[in-house]
Formats: sequence, C-alpha cells, structure tokens
Amino acid sequence: MNSLFTIRNLSVDVINDLLSSARVYKNLIESGLQVPEIPKHTVGLLFFENSTRTRVSFEQAANYLGYKCINFSGSGSSMKKGETLKDTILTLKHERLEAVVMRHEASGACNLAAKYFEGPVINAGDGRHEHPTQALADALTILDRKGKIKGLKVAIVGDVTNSRVARSNAWLLSKLGAEVRFVGPRTLVPGQSSTLPATVYHDLRSGLIDTDVVMALRLQRERMDNGVVSVSEFRRLYQVNRGSLRACAPDAIVMHPGPLNRGVEIDDLTADGPSSTINEQVTNGIYVRMAALAWAFENVPAKAGSLK
Amino acid sequence: MNSLFTIRNLSVDVINDLLSSARVYKNLIESGLQVPEIPKHTVGLLFFENSTRTRVSFEQAANYLGYKCINFSGSGSSMKKGETLKDTILTLKHERLEAVVMRHEASGACNLAAKYFEGPVINAGDGRHEHPTQALADALTILDRKGKIKGLKVAIVGDVTNSRVARSNAWLLSKLGAEVRFVGPRTLVPGQSSTLPATVYHDLRSGLIDTDVVMALRLQRERMDNGVVSVSEFRRLYQVNRGSLRACAPDAIVMHPGPLNRGVEIDDLTADGPSSTINEQVTNGIYVRMAALAWAFENVPAKAGSLK
Amino acid sequence: MNSLFTIRNLSVDVINDLLSSARVYKNLIESGLQVPEIPKHTVGLLFFENSTRTRVSFEQAANYLGYKCINFSGSGSSMKKGETLKDTILTLKHERLEAVVMRHEASGACNLAAKYFEGPVINAGDGRHEHPTQALADALTILDRKGKIKGLKVAIVGDVTNSRVARSNAWLLSKLGAEVRFVGPRTLVPGQSSTLPATVYHDLRSGLIDTDVVMALRLQRERMDNGVVSVSEFRRLYQVNRGSLRACAPDAIVMHPGPLNRGVEIDDLTADGPSSTINEQVTNGIYVRMAALAWAFENVPAKAGSLK
Repeated sequence: MNSLFTIRNLSVDVINDLLSSARVYKNLIESGLQVPEIPKHTVGLLFFENSTRTRVSFEQAANYLGYKCINFSGSGSSMKKGETLKDTILTLKHERLEAVVMRHEASGACNLAAKYFEGPVINAGDGRHEHPTQALADALTILDRKGKIKGLKVAIVGDVTNSRVARSNAWLLSKLGAEVRFVGPRTLVPGQSSTLPATVYHDLRSGLIDTDVVMALRLQRERMDNGVVSVSEFRRLYQVNRGSLRACAPDAIVMHPGPLNRGVEIDDLTADGPSSTINEQVTNGIYVRMAALAWAFENVPAKAGSLK
Repeated sequence: MNSLFTIRNLSVDVINDLLSSARVYKNLIESGLQVPEIPKHTVGLLFFENSTRTRVSFEQAANYLGYKCINFSGSGSSMKKGETLKDTILTLKHERLEAVVMRHEASGACNLAAKYFEGPVINAGDGRHEHPTQALADALTILDRKGKIKGLKVAIVGDVTNSRVARSNAWLLSKLGAEVRFVGPRTLVPGQSSTLPATVYHDLRSGLIDTDVVMALRLQRERMDNGVVSVSEFRRLYQVNRGSLRACAPDAIVMHPGPLNRGVEIDDLTADGPSSTINEQVTNGIYVRMAALAWAFENVPAKAGSLK
Repeated sequence: MNSLFTIRNLSVDVINDLLSSARVYKNLIESGLQVPEIPKHTVGLLFFENSTRTRVSFEQAANYLGYKCINFSGSGSSMKKGETLKDTILTLKHERLEAVVMRHEASGACNLAAKYFEGPVINAGDGRHEHPTQALADALTILDRKGKIKGLKVAIVGDVTNSRVARSNAWLLSKLGAEVRFVGPRTLVPGQSSTLPATVYHDLRSGLIDTDVVMALRLQRERMDNGVVSVSEFRRLYQVNRGSLRACAPDAIVMHPGPLNRGVEIDDLTADGPSSTINEQVTNGIYVRMAALAWAFENVPAKAGSLK
C-alpha cells in the first residue's frame, strides 16, 4: 500500500519505477493491447475544487485498469453541512473505498486525509503545494521528446508562487538531474531565499537562454482581476512566444499544464505549434495515473527495462 | 466515424437508417434479448446546460450498448477558470475519449467541438439551433403510432422561436414527407420569411385543422417572467387541450418533448390521456440514441428491413 | 417487487428478513467472498438534498450486487426548469430505470414517486419523516455489539423533532422489543402527545439511566443559527460525553448517524472512543442497503438462519 502526496518526498527509485510503469501502460494501450488482469479496486474521486482534465484523466486511468470509481465533489457533500474533513474521510474509509484521489484547496490536506483513511491516498492537487501526477506526466513527456532528463535546462515561466505544478516539477526534474529555473516578475516568483531547487530569473531572456524545455504556467484569473499583475505588462515581458523562444536551444519544447489563458502566458502560434507538447502531456497524464493507482495497490506491471 | 450535428444536413437515407437501427434495438431490448456484442467505446457526456432526460437517456443507451460513459457538467469544469471550448475539447480528445455527446447554450458549439475533437460528436441540444436525437425519438414515436410519416399533417405549437426541438422536427418531418405547421403568437413564432420548412399560423384553430400530430412545446419560464408573453393569454389562445384538439383529425396524437409546464401549454387531461405519446417519446429516446452512438462508431446493427 | 418507504409500515418479519440478508452479505464481503450472481438491474440515485455517506453507500451496495447506478442530483436536473416531481419520475420510469433510490426534502415524496414509477422506490431520507436504511444499519450495529435488541433500553438524544433517523429508529427498535426514549429540551423533542413509540425525557441524566444504547443526533446548523437553541446551553445540558454517560449501563454503546458536530452534541473523546459505533454504522449501511436493493427486486440471498 502506497500513498502519493508529494514529489518532494519520493525517492529517485520510486520516480523511475512510476515512469517506467507508465511507459509499459502507454505501450500496451497505444498498441491496442489489453492491460493484464489485476485485482480490482474501488477508488473514490474527491474533488473539492473544479477540475476537468485531472478528474477525467484519473477516471480514464481507472477504467483502463478495471478499477471502479465513485465520484463526488465538495458541493454535493456533507461538508456543506459542516462535517470535518476527518469525518468525511472516516466515512469513506468505512464505506469500504479502497483508495482516495483527492484535490483540495488546502496544502497538506492529503496527508491529513491519509492519517484517517489508512489506505492509499493520491494527491490530485493540494492548494499551492504539489500536484505530483502532473509532474510525472510532464517528465514522461520530456522523456518521450528528449530521451532523457539528466542535464537538460528547464525554465518554468510565470505564476510560480501559486503553482503546485511548478513546485512538483522543480522537485521531480531536479531529482532526475535537470537544471530548473523559475522565471517571472518578483510578484509571482519567490525570491532566492526559497527552499525550492531552482534558480530564479526575473528577466525572461536570461532565464530562457539555452533551455531545452520551457514550461509556461497559467496566470490565475484572480491575480489579473485584483491587480497584482498587469496583464498587458505580463504579456509583454513574460509571454512564451516565437520572440521569447529565440533565446532557447534550437529544438526546445514548450509545455503547459493547462488550462491555458491563450494570448496571456502563451500565444496561439506556440500553443498549437510543433514544439508544443500540451496534448502529449494530457495523454501521458492517463498513463502516469495508471502507474500511480497500480502502485498504490502494489499491482505494478512487469518492468519495462531501463528508461530509454 | 460519423458526427450528428443537425437534422438539416442529414440525408433521408441516413435518417431512415438511424430510425431502422433504433427499431432493431427497440425490438431486442423490449423482448428482453441481449444487444449483440460490439466493440466497446468510452463516451464523454458534456452537459453545459441542465438536463435530466437527455443525459440519463444517453447514459442508458450507452449502457445497453456496453459503452462506458464519463460524465461532466460545465459547473465543475475548467471552463469555470476561463478555458476555451477549443482547449476543453482538445483535452478530452487527448484523454482518449472516443466520442463526445454535448449540450451547450451556443448554437453551433458542436461543429466547433468536432473540428478539434476529430472524432464523433453528437449534438444533445445547442442553443436555439437543433436537438437531433429528440426529433429522431419523435419520428420513431409517430411511426409506432401512425405507421408512416409521409403525408401526415403535423402542428408544432407554442414557443417555436426558442425551440431547438421545433427546428429539428421541422427538418426531419418535412424531409420524410410530412406537412409541418408552426402555430403560435407573433412573439413566439418566426414570420413567413423564415427559411424553415413549415407554414406559419397565428390562430390555433386554423393551425390544427385536420392535423394528425400536435406537438406542444414548453413555454420557457424566462419568457413568462419577463413579460414577453402573458401566461393567461397564452393559455387561453394556444393551450393544447380537449377544446383545441377538436379541430384535429379524430385519431390525432399529442406529443411534447418535455419538460412540461402542466396547465400552461398543455392541460393535465391531455398530457395524461390516451392520445398523449409523451412517455413513448422518452423510451424511444433511448433507442434512437443507441442508434446514433452505434452509427457514430459505424457499429450499425443488421438492418430491420424496410420501415413499416 | 418491493418498495421501502418507512419502517413504520414494515412488519417485524420483513425487518428480520432484511437484517438477516444484510448479515449474509456482511459475512460474504468481509470474508472476501463473491456475492452470488443475481439478475442485474439499473438503479437511479436521485438525491435532491446533499449527501456523502448515503449516496456513496447505496452506490457501493449496488456495486457489490453488480447493479448499475445512474446518478443525478436535483441541481443539474429539469426540476430547475419547473418540472414536477411526477413528470421527473415518469421520465425516469420511461427511461427504463428499474428502481429509484430517492432523497427529498418533502416528507412522503417517495410515496408520491412510487405511485408514478410503478417499480421499487427506496427512501434514502424524506424531510423530517423517515430514513429507513439508516435505522436498519443502526439495528444491525446493535445486534453486532449486543447480540439482541429485545429488552434493551435505548436513548435517542437531541434534535428529535427534525430527525428522520430518530423516527425510523423509534419505530424499528420498538417493533423489535426495545424500550425507546427521546431525550432533549422542549424545543427539540415533541411532547408526550406524540404518536411515536417513545417516552420523552427533558432531563439528560434521567433519560440515560440504565440505558444500553445512547444515540446522539446531529444538531441542525440552521437551528443553532436562528436562535431556537443556544449552543452553549445545549452542550452543557445535553452533550453526550464521559460525564453524561455515567448514568448508563456500564457497557453502553454510543451511536451517531452522522454527520457529526464534534463538540456540540458529542465530544471528541466519546466519538472516537471504544464505546462509539459510528464507523460500524457506516459499514453496516452498505450491507443493509444491499439487502434493501436485493429485496426490492426479490433477489433475496439464502437465509442466514436465525439472527444471533
């Protein structure tokens, strides 16, 4: 039985096992083959925050594994009646759910949930903290395109402070030997004092020089609305587009975890162009979530050999 | 691979094939027989507007075919965070959904979705535009009751301007050789200049004379509330009830796509009486949706021979 | 075909059959055995009020039986467009749902639904009226802990007036031979004139003397907010905690149907202590709902012999 809270606390061995399982699933499914029969489990999908891509991705992953999902969102639940998270989780445990996939607005909510659930809990995004399966999907995508992660230069651009994706990717890619850079204005990027394994750049051009991977982050609407950031200035200084990409390595790829604000942090031409891996990230999301769910129950597929 | 956006652009041959498949499914299921094994698919049900009957009907249709559904509504999705429809659809495509059933408040939203989805998209109602599977259910119901559509006189009564059901039925029934009439006050029925294949009547009695089929439409609450229509006047002048039905052919049937405003566009006695086909329309909805889903994937059942 | 509206109208024989089926299912599932193959059915879960525990419990029960669920809540349905309950139910009937599990804010809504559905309807809570499967879960829990119900003294404490759980338990436990007491302030407990089979106590200590079972009820937030009850006074006079439990029999158990207001009607120490059966009630909820669903379709498992 395994829980997945953060990338930060995951060993490089476990990360490599998860990526290698994801690769096995990817090869099976994209060849139209059946996923080998494994014991079936019932998984609760608890989304206390809105989600299209992540919830559907977990549901699709569960489908491919033959697991059953029970969905529920915060809005239709007893938490509206003032029930504590502890009691919601205890209820689900005693309703014999075997694992919980949880998105919650509070950082660390999964750790609390796991304490009471006493079964596998997978973090599908907790506040500004981590979103580990998104980072795994991103790593699998980089491996698909670049054949390696070690030694790559990766720039994560934009609203780093609010981004759980940025945090999970910084941990994951640095653990696997990449050089990670955070790029953005002082209002959106934590200073050098940060404990995250990344170098901070406030100038886009400097941050992108020689990078192999550029990851644009969604600028939160709320931030635009409350005036923390001027959208027009952000667009001018930090948008990932053909102009700003000139500083990168010639075959650099452009990533985005979605949802996109087209024309804000990324322009249409780049989002839909050949260097964009946005769609591949979505598809790889299914395979890493299969790997995470199977690993949660220790139903790991035969190793795929070493990662290429 | 086929998409179903509108009845308007469907050939008579395809319409007949769909109705004939629906008849095959109806006979199988109502005899308690198994639907033949066909390749399984995963279908996304995207309802950006409220729905009971249509969503459940598609889910039931998918169940009978052995397809798997993944539900999601606009309210719990990333579109709340400002994601474009294009990006939502691209995400679902790359999450390996194989077809999308979509209800959306914007006319033509399905066509846009299909452009990016590159797989079958079935329109479950788009704005004031079309609702093709409802019209197919209605046609199957008329065939059940009347044995034919060609040559029938059909009056569609009430809020035609706002009704996607009226539009889809006008196209479908006129293509199959019926005479279609739109009946209602000038505020609710587009004038003669309309390009729809129907004759307009503003007087209920004249519109119903000799009709074989009377289809009452739901009067939108919003319209009643904002004073476009006086409910008491509408009821007096356009309600489908025993009095107004005297003008019809003696064995005329009364249809309604639901949901009903009992006592407004139709009275209780008529809604629940022997000439009412409301419940049959609901059940036939399942079979035409099975036909549409199977046709989308080109899993068409053996022909049922000619329609009776 | 059977419907389950209330405990009040259930015979002792049927109650014993349901508890005995639930015991069979419990033994099978907790031994890791398969539930015997029975004909599969499609069940609609209609929740017009918020619910975590009950909806998930029914869904899990259906999963174990191999039944298929179609979920829908009031908020995404045509009832938002003014459709009557009658028409919603007629629609679901003609969409070929085979049973309906329904939670509704109006007492007696299930009876109305069953009139139109003409198939099994299971009450998952109707207004302040009844919640029969919760009472069955509670009875199974008492049997697990005490080996019998006949002759036990049971105190139900708190907001009895608003509690459908209190009503269903009063009927069920008194039918099976327990002595039932309602305990709470005059504002929350109906007077002696009540037709419910329970004796009323307004003093907690007197109500708890020699009781074998204490069931605390959730104090409705609305009641606290509108000043009907002073929370601090309620806590002081009626909270179930180590102090108040001194009056009970030495091996008394403490029950709560959830969701809990920790620190209001029950303190943490008691809720999480060894006399608490809260988690067992949740798990037993699954088994009694399996029994109720199977009984609805007359797919009753082989008898488990007499209840111990």
